[in-house]
Amino acid sequence: MGGTSFERGPRGEPVAEIGPVCPRFHESVELVGRRWAGAILFSLIDGPLYFRELLVAVPGLSDRLLSQRLRELEAEGLIERSVHEGTPARVSYCLSESGEALKPALAALCEWANDWRE
Amino acid sequence: MGGTSFERGPRGEPVAEIGPVCPRFHESVELVGRRWAGAILFSLIDGPLYFRELLVAVPGLSDRLLSQRLRELEAEGLIERSVHEGTPARVSYCLSESGEALKPALAALCEWANDWRE
Repeated sequence: MGGTSFERGPRGEPVAEIGPVCPRFHESVELVGRRWAGAILFSLIDGPLYFRELLVAVPGLSDRLLSQRLRELEAEGLIERSVHEGTPARVSYCLSESGEALKPALAALCEWANDWRE
Repeated sequence: MGGTSFERGPRGEPVAEIGPVCPRFHESVELVGRRWAGAILFSLIDGPLYFRELLVAVPGLSDRLLSQRLRELEAEGLIERSVHEGTPARVSYCLSESGEALKPALAALCEWANDWRE
């Protein structure tokens, strides 16, 4: 164990037992970080948006892919879909209660991004 | 604009201008949320780990894929690699300063995961 530069027990073992990463965290970070998902959630932080507005808020995303991601986020319970009567009918999306609860994590990541990324 | 249930201007426009999601945030959420990346970062929160220990901390990950992800995270400046002399030499990984700065975001996401995910 020569050359270790961090705290270890007498046989070089970690001081705390190594357990697997919390599976709930693991699933969540990959859910939120899935391509386009984080950007969609972030764009809904200030309130609901219509489908076309989401296309503006998340540039580079096709209609088809946006629809797919919205369906997935709805199925995961992170966003809610509302149909507004009219001609044509319009569809808007907002964060669900669970999605709203993500705001502190999204804000913390945004702060990190501004502090540390080019 | 019949049936809208959220605040809009007189012509149905959003009250705030819709701009594109912050590109730094977008890149960051997908960097941290990339498959296995978040779990690796999370497992290093309590201190450095050797390669073999990371395999325990992030179950389901092959040697090859762990190596690849570690190289990517190192290239992104989120983790640092240390070689410890000995026979055999061992390699450990820890969060960089930038990786350390991610802790509040990771903690907030972990709290959300525990509150909202099964």
